[in-house]
Amino acid sequence: MNYIGIDLGGTNIAAGIVDEKGNLIYTDSVPTRSERDAVEIIADIAKLVEHMLTEKGISKEEIKSIGIGVPGVSDETTGNIISCVNLGWYNQPLRVPLEELLKLPVFIDNDATVAGVAEYHAGKMKGYRNGVFITLGTGVGSGIIINGKVIRGSHGVGSEVGHMIVGENFYNCNCGKNGCLETFSSATAMIKYAQHGIKEGEKSSIINEIDGNLEKITAKLIIDHAKAGDLFAESVVDRMVKYLAIGIFNITNIIDPDIFVIGGGVSKAGDYLLKKLNEVVQANKLFKDLPVGKIEIAELENDAGIIGAAMLGKM
Amino acid sequence: MNYIGIDLGGTNIAAGIVDEKGNLIYTDSVPTRSERDAVEIIADIAKLVEHMLTEKGISKEEIKSIGIGVPGVSDETTGNIISCVNLGWYNQPLRVPLEELLKLPVFIDNDATVAGVAEYHAGKMKGYRNGVFITLGTGVGSGIIINGKVIRGSHGVGSEVGHMIVGENFYNCNCGKNGCLETFSSATAMIKYAQHGIKEGEKSSIINEIDGNLEKITAKLIIDHAKAGDLFAESVVDRMVKYLAIGIFNITNIIDPDIFVIGGGVSKAGDYLLKKLNEVVQANKLFKDLPVGKIEIAELENDAGIIGAAMLGKM
Repeated sequence: MNYIGIDLGGTNIAAGIVDEKGNLIYTDSVPTRSERDAVEIIADIAKLVEHMLTEKGISKEEIKSIGIGVPGVSDETTGNIISCVNLGWYNQPLRVPLEELLKLPVFIDNDATVAGVAEYHAGKMKGYRNGVFITLGTGVGSGIIINGKVIRGSHGVGSEVGHMIVGENFYNCNCGKNGCLETFSSATAMIKYAQHGIKEGEKSSIINEIDGNLEKITAKLIIDHAKAGDLFAESVVDRMVKYLAIGIFNITNIIDPDIFVIGGGVSKAGDYLLKKLNEVVQANKLFKDLPVGKIEIAELENDAGIIGAAMLGKM
Repeated sequence: MNYIGIDLGGTNIAAGIVDEKGNLIYTDSVPTRSERDAVEIIADIAKLVEHMLTEKGISKEEIKSIGIGVPGVSDETTGNIISCVNLGWYNQPLRVPLEELLKLPVFIDNDATVAGVAEYHAGKMKGYRNGVFITLGTGVGSGIIINGKVIRGSHGVGSEVGHMIVGENFYNCNCGKNGCLETFSSATAMIKYAQHGIKEGEKSSIINEIDGNLEKITAKLIIDHAKAGDLFAESVVDRMVKYLAIGIFNITNIIDPDIFVIGGGVSKAGDYLLKKLNEVVQANKLFKDLPVGKIEIAELENDAGIIGAAMLGKM
């Protein structure tokens, strides 16, 4: 049997056919054109699925289910999208209309959870029973798998480690609280902290590249200058790592997974990030020597959204 | 079928026969005399079990398993006690010798987890699939149940929410870190903070009752004076509640349980504590209105150790 995965974004609807092992065997995409009615977008998803099956010569009987990753919050019971800012969807039915159009079972989950599911089936989490995927991008998202099952929580608000409180920060999170992991360890957090430092007079080679415009600072720029030896840029990375390590320990104290997999834009710092993170985690073990899960950088990158969505039907 | 539960403490070995529904139908106990060799203590546990069965006229065939709650860390695979300070046990085999003596399956877990299991089968967590028991005593311990299974973690260090970092504190935790929940929300933490405040010159009706000896301050004394309207004592309780609420939200962001059950000595503050805790939690919801699990005070008290240990064989 095969599975269909849909990565529903604000710009594109990316779709693919995935085999039992999580291999992507066919992909296609269409623009989302999110200004349209949800009904039209849902019809386009159905058309895209039908088109892929025709092109690849696969019948519907060979497809077990369809999974959709959405950058928002969905209700597992109803299959409705509770809130998806990028699409302007609020309490929007998705599973029911799509199941009616395609006559196949539909599974929906958050895009970070979906990326975690991809790593679980076909990436760095493969072979482990308990794993936590943490994505460091605009915000901090996560996908948590315990005993081979995705953890959504009793009210659908689990697997949101970005809002775990890990310290005190100089600005509040958009959730209204102070000290969320997201405000320390996202790309946005790194940028804000770098801007804050430069405004306060910190010296950095970053300053030479932004024409006096602090808005030009990106996480990539900070990481590149840190790697090149700029002390201020490195302190920004180190602060991100310090709080990410606290997050990793807090998760360990609760569910103690086999492995943590770090994804998202910031994870492109690769071995440079991994080395720093492992140093801080190893130096700060609970009671100095209690075990903590392995840490790896995610491997699936762009395809994670399609593969993980497809694999939702296999969890 | 019935189950045997053993609450192995530094002072007493308390044991009981528990039915399928978690009702305690017989209890007995002997002194631990922890200065003795482990072999002698284990032999006494076996004798106590045999004695209870004889007294109650129940045959071994009517017993499904034996569970033991230990104030320490055990290795699920080997059934050895990795570390139990109260008994001076380190890497001490427990399951194997006891199974040899009694010819019944033996399950071992941490005493906080065991108390959580008791609440799950016969207390406030009954009927819920996902629950977190938090005990506020000398330290802060926990028992976490997800989808009806106890969470021990991949390395046996899960369900230790007392060492979750929730802020910055004026003293370090005995685990070597700063900011552990245990240093804000245990009975010990309340005492330390009250002593610290009084040393710094805070005025409080507590001072009239301790003959100038700060060592006489107890969590009960602080709570009694807070209830009676002493502002400093109330601020000590409020600080404990503030960080407990952060802990509850951090757990929610990860596993989002149906219910939190608060036990341990501090929970004897009862409705006074529950009202304060609910106020802080309701006022600080994620994104102002996202759901959070119900909060209750534990109901089983002293029997939780025996009932929960017995029910380990039913998880």
